[in-house]
Amino acid sequence: VERITIVGVGLIGGSFALAVRKAGFTGRILGVSSPETIRTALDHGVIDEAMPLAQAAGQSDLIYLAQPIERILATLDELDAYVRPGTLITDAGSTKAAIVQRAQETIRRGRFVGGHPMAGKQSRGVAHAEPSLFSRHPYILTSRELELEHWVERIGAHLVVMDAAEHDRLVALTSHVPQLISTALASSIAAQSGAGRVAGPAAIDLTRLAMSSYDIWRDIFETNAGPIDAALERFIGKLEELRKNLRSPQMRDEFDRASAGAHALRQVRVL
Amino acid sequence: VERITIVGVGLIGGSFALAVRKAGFTGRILGVSSPETIRTALDHGVIDEAMPLAQAAGQSDLIYLAQPIERILATLDELDAYVRPGTLITDAGSTKAAIVQRAQETIRRGRFVGGHPMAGKQSRGVAHAEPSLFSRHPYILTSRELELEHWVERIGAHLVVMDAAEHDRLVALTSHVPQLISTALASSIAAQSGAGRVAGPAAIDLTRLAMSSYDIWRDIFETNAGPIDAALERFIGKLEELRKNLRSPQMRDEFDRASAGAHALRQVRVL
Repeated sequence: VERITIVGVGLIGGSFALAVRKAGFTGRILGVSSPETIRTALDHGVIDEAMPLAQAAGQSDLIYLAQPIERILATLDELDAYVRPGTLITDAGSTKAAIVQRAQETIRRGRFVGGHPMAGKQSRGVAHAEPSLFSRHPYILTSRELELEHWVERIGAHLVVMDAAEHDRLVALTSHVPQLISTALASSIAAQSGAGRVAGPAAIDLTRLAMSSYDIWRDIFETNAGPIDAALERFIGKLEELRKNLRSPQMRDEFDRASAGAHALRQVRVL
Repeated sequence: VERITIVGVGLIGGSFALAVRKAGFTGRILGVSSPETIRTALDHGVIDEAMPLAQAAGQSDLIYLAQPIERILATLDELDAYVRPGTLITDAGSTKAAIVQRAQETIRRGRFVGGHPMAGKQSRGVAHAEPSLFSRHPYILTSRELELEHWVERIGAHLVVMDAAEHDRLVALTSHVPQLISTALASSIAAQSGAGRVAGPAAIDLTRLAMSSYDIWRDIFETNAGPIDAALERFIGKLEELRKNLRSPQMRDEFDRASAGAHALRQVRVL
């Protein structure tokens, strides 16, 4: 890989640029984004040069789509015409089935591998990009591709390979249900008169995600509604079970299991 | 107040001792706890002296009960016999109705005011006590008492006065439901094969509370089952509503309301 194009130079795209640079990439990094974002990205030294998509894609070995999901789908619709045969294309969209399917329909000359770095932070935008954003977090690829696996590992992420459907089913529980929980809790607290006066660390912690922008989540709900619905149904079932057993001694087992599970999530992840 | 007794010198009791000391309390601080805890508390300079309850209570102006709820109830059963008339007694239990009722039945010579500092951290025990633990967090008193209000404010907490029933109803939503959410989520993730491999920051954030010890929560569920059941039912109703509207445009309003609520919780709290 001698030339990388980042399409959508926000927090994720910008961090990927900084991360591969820090990991030893010595080639050129091109950016495709809005004029305002490009200005910030150039100011922060995140990209080397800005270009329109057609021009950048035609001279790149790796194209990294870090836009919102619906924009990634739209980019895929036009991208293949611009790329040289064999160009590696990946993305960082939060759901994978819709994107992988679209790529299968549209990408002929390029080679597409879906990707999802499980990273992020509250502050968005390229000004908050950082090379360590992916470090020690899972990074899912929807199929094996040696060169891409190599970069995922070099930026410090934990490589996980699984197909798009399994990814979407699992993140419905680990990412999308947590968002809905946080939104529902913040909404419930806001609706209950006086509740804000007694909110302590637990409420603060669990309502952090509720400050996320709907603009990102609309596409996620749109492209992963089925798995989210199923995961939410199971989660609600578990809550009903706890509710029923509130004063039962078997709550100790529930707490033990949950605590062990929470600790396990915090272990350094292995393949 | 010239002499304070802390009964149960753990994270909360120890932090209260350090906090009043830092806020200018120049009298003596006595500790009632297990021998092991007392040793740590003396080593860390948290208390001045250890004593059995009867002896400490008889020479104190303020008695601070920072034990688990069931232990507070047991202490209340014997405490009044030891105290001098007019001794101020307060507690730091996480639910208030059961404790305030027990105090009404048992405390005759002393004056009891229920208390609940909305503070804490993952690490328990007096070794982790810190004088700033209560700083900028709500501190609920179940009735007005000038001297106690004075100390709550001097340790940097936000004084909130409300009756025990209202407290229990509100913390059911802001503290107890969050715990159950976290336990249910960690349990669900643990039960879903492969989910741990894709868990990102959201899952990590929302499963932190799941590592709490059941020993503390058993008493909370026991003494606040009614309000928790009601709050959980409403929260589940809100989740079902989000589930139904997953792809509806009105999710934007839900996100906006929740985000505004989450931001409001983070404003500096006022009376």
